[in-house]
Amino acid sequence: MSRADLASQTCSIARSIAQVGDEWSLMILRELFLGTRRFDDFLLYTGMSSHLLSKRLRKLETRGVIKREPYAYRPMRHEYRLTGMGRDLWPVIVALKQWGDRWLVDGATPVQIRHKGCGHVTIPEMTCSQCGEAMSATDARARLSEPFENERTSLVRST
Amino acid sequence: MSRADLASQTCSIARSIAQVGDEWSLMILRELFLGTRRFDDFLLYTGMSSHLLSKRLRKLETRGVIKREPYAYRPMRHEYRLTGMGRDLWPVIVALKQWGDRWLVDGATPVQIRHKGCGHVTIPEMTCSQCGEAMSATDARARLSEPFENERTSLVRST
Repeated sequence: MSRADLASQTCSIARSIAQVGDEWSLMILRELFLGTRRFDDFLLYTGMSSHLLSKRLRKLETRGVIKREPYAYRPMRHEYRLTGMGRDLWPVIVALKQWGDRWLVDGATPVQIRHKGCGHVTIPEMTCSQCGEAMSATDARARLSEPFENERTSLVRST
Repeated sequence: MSRADLASQTCSIARSIAQVGDEWSLMILRELFLGTRRFDDFLLYTGMSSHLLSKRLRKLETRGVIKREPYAYRPMRHEYRLTGMGRDLWPVIVALKQWGDRWLVDGATPVQIRHKGCGHVTIPEMTCSQCGEAMSATDARARLSEPFENERTSLVRST
């Protein structure tokens, strides 16, 4: 199974992984959420090669996660911005940040988040949309849809 | 900059990406959260090659995300389970799921989550730890720590 195959799986997790679940797409997203817009700055702050950066930006643009906008005309220069679809990836990056803060960093968090709404420094958390309680893995029971269940059963049968 | 370099960045997002931010580690995590424990089942449901699966399982074990436990002795067989550190990655997988459900899937979600606490089907969301309101990218203001800011400035100076 290749990356392309992940994109055609029934599972929305696999599909998301196919779109943005690689190191460099995630690093570009980190930068976009930190306000980086220009090619040379992505290059500098992610440490990617220019070739790979071009490739990933093109992929993210094709998938609708980012858009290019001109900021100079002679010569023509573009900057990159998140689309609405791209901004919706914020919880993914925040979840990676919280995990890193908890398990991989000693001391103060490298990126502090303030909630504009209430004005406080916040540690965003996953909560239940129904009761508002914070949720973790052990609080959740997953149930697969029939098409997803069937897809998995057919994998078993084909072995 | 390579994967190894990401792990030594000040930023906790980059560090998390270095640990689990690749397609196949994320697919293995999906399976672990769906209850998969055995090598052959990971192989089947992720579609990875056996070589790559061994490599990623070893990496996740070395980093403390999963642990191996014997389930048969003649011959010796192991199954794989999330550690506490690994279970803490649940919000990352859930965030990928929500994004996929919203942007990449038509119709019903392939994986429905029920909150054991309140008993309802839920769509977990990122909320502010201070005021409890749901948060999105536009509600957040990021502030870099001094060490992280200095690291970025030194990259600018060294060009």
